[in-house]
Amino acid sequence: MQTLEYYQKEFISFLEEQEYIKEPRNLYDPVSYILNLGGKRLRPVLTLIAAELFGSDSKKALPAAMAVEVFHNFSLLHDDIMDDAPLRRGKPTVHEKWDVNTGILSGDVMLINSYEHLEGYNPDILKKLFLLFNRTAVEVCEGQQYDVDFETRNDVSIEEYLKMIEYKTSVLIGAALKMGAIVAGAPEDQQDLIYDFGRNLGIAFQLQDDYLDAFGDPEVFGKQVAGDIIENKKTYLYLKALELANAEDKDALQQLFESHPENPDEKVKKAKHIFSTSSSDKATQEAIKQFTEKAFESLNKVEAPAAGKQLLKAMGRNLMERTN
Amino acid sequence: MQTLEYYQKEFISFLEEQEYIKEPRNLYDPVSYILNLGGKRLRPVLTLIAAELFGSDSKKALPAAMAVEVFHNFSLLHDDIMDDAPLRRGKPTVHEKWDVNTGILSGDVMLINSYEHLEGYNPDILKKLFLLFNRTAVEVCEGQQYDVDFETRNDVSIEEYLKMIEYKTSVLIGAALKMGAIVAGAPEDQQDLIYDFGRNLGIAFQLQDDYLDAFGDPEVFGKQVAGDIIENKKTYLYLKALELANAEDKDALQQLFESHPENPDEKVKKAKHIFSTSSSDKATQEAIKQFTEKAFESLNKVEAPAAGKQLLKAMGRNLMERTN
Repeated sequence: MQTLEYYQKEFISFLEEQEYIKEPRNLYDPVSYILNLGGKRLRPVLTLIAAELFGSDSKKALPAAMAVEVFHNFSLLHDDIMDDAPLRRGKPTVHEKWDVNTGILSGDVMLINSYEHLEGYNPDILKKLFLLFNRTAVEVCEGQQYDVDFETRNDVSIEEYLKMIEYKTSVLIGAALKMGAIVAGAPEDQQDLIYDFGRNLGIAFQLQDDYLDAFGDPEVFGKQVAGDIIENKKTYLYLKALELANAEDKDALQQLFESHPENPDEKVKKAKHIFSTSSSDKATQEAIKQFTEKAFESLNKVEAPAAGKQLLKAMGRNLMERTN
Repeated sequence: MQTLEYYQKEFISFLEEQEYIKEPRNLYDPVSYILNLGGKRLRPVLTLIAAELFGSDSKKALPAAMAVEVFHNFSLLHDDIMDDAPLRRGKPTVHEKWDVNTGILSGDVMLINSYEHLEGYNPDILKKLFLLFNRTAVEVCEGQQYDVDFETRNDVSIEEYLKMIEYKTSVLIGAALKMGAIVAGAPEDQQDLIYDFGRNLGIAFQLQDDYLDAFGDPEVFGKQVAGDIIENKKTYLYLKALELANAEDKDALQQLFESHPENPDEKVKKAKHIFSTSSSDKATQEAIKQFTEKAFESLNKVEAPAAGKQLLKAMGRNLMERTN
């Protein structure tokens, strides 16, 4: 077992070896562009670590890791079009730098490319990866659709919200780990345990994102502070506040989340105040803790050398103790 | 071996059994909508026929046929967004009936669904189908990109044009047939022959489309008459005319294809006149004949019962003698 940095470097080297400067350039240049915008490469690294955890060489899992990373970037590319996002990792998004049509078609070919990276596996491994990858990819699309649907719905339940973030974010983290386990030939119960670890950690991670959006340190939080409040996003913090707040605060919060003031400072202050007085902030932290613990419970049950499990635990703790 | 109508009915029954009324509705309703717009179902029917040609039961090939049809409709859906097309088979396109974002995401899930239809095949067959399907899907995207690129280029060669229509249209017809052959366990040389039959027939089919756009009977031709001329599309007729026409006509044609007159009648008349005087019309018919003959040569080499080959030949002849 190596360090996190080792697997990151290993993956990035493999990524850089990929041939993406090819014809037609207008199709593949945007693919190369988005794949080289950087990022922590969390998902593919998890695939490599899971493969080693179950006794394989991480090299064997590199193509599966690429499939996961290319798929993830495909979904970012198309989501950015749908959200009309101008920036991704501080750089212009593909549809801004090129145009929407280019973004659609380059995204399409990335989705197909992600499948292509699985071509080298033997038929039995391939079929297992294929079933998991298909199901995960469909769920990511469904999660994105639920997210879009929730924007115009006023009756979203906490349960529905959790399902949405599970599909949109967490299943790909679970699948990244499980793909490593499949490549390593791990038994099915072990595959499921590592999947559940990733899935629950992913939910905790997204809830943490919700929390930090409102209560993170603006000095270290990378995104627009309180962006979710400004854009009236129905996050866990908001939905839990509606559940816990008194009638007056509930009304006030709902009204705030229908407003679009030019200067949002007062709105943000009021919303955060209600998140605190309703104890929605504490409830969110409690939920983060619960999903993290659930994740670690699954990891504890995994039958694998302690060193590998320690590395995953350290990654999980880092994610949960992050302030940005 | 059954009749063409038999396989069409068999496929349509299978399509209607598919469960596409599912949650989230905003994601899957457009999928169901576009898949039920009708059409000749040419591609999936070819998959079924190829399977029977090589001694399998067409039932075994139904999921592969579905994969082809769902993929084809995914590509129509996204192409319609890129072309901002208002109608598809006389009905509003998905992005018109819903919106562009819905069109993007529903198209994405259709692309994944097309892979899902392959899940039931055993690992060895699956891997063969998977490799072919990936390559074909990538080529279709590349063909679409070349088509977009050609709109703003003035130096497109006939060779490049043929490659574009091969990728955009023909490889999926070849792949539809080859997938049936793979499901039936046909030897590789037979798979390649049937693929080449479909690929060359597909090129002939597209050239026929180019020809009919200008010279088809407006009473029976389904699309806007001379739409390619009006939209300055660099078709085979146009590129061949540039090659064959005298300097004066060449200049005149190029100027015509930079104009966008409000009333296109005169432009259409002049362009068609140059297509005729340059003999580009005859050269196009000659090319159609050549690709059709090439297709039939491959089919003749296929080692299979005459009845099946007759059915494919009849389909090919019908396509080539069509007037709309």
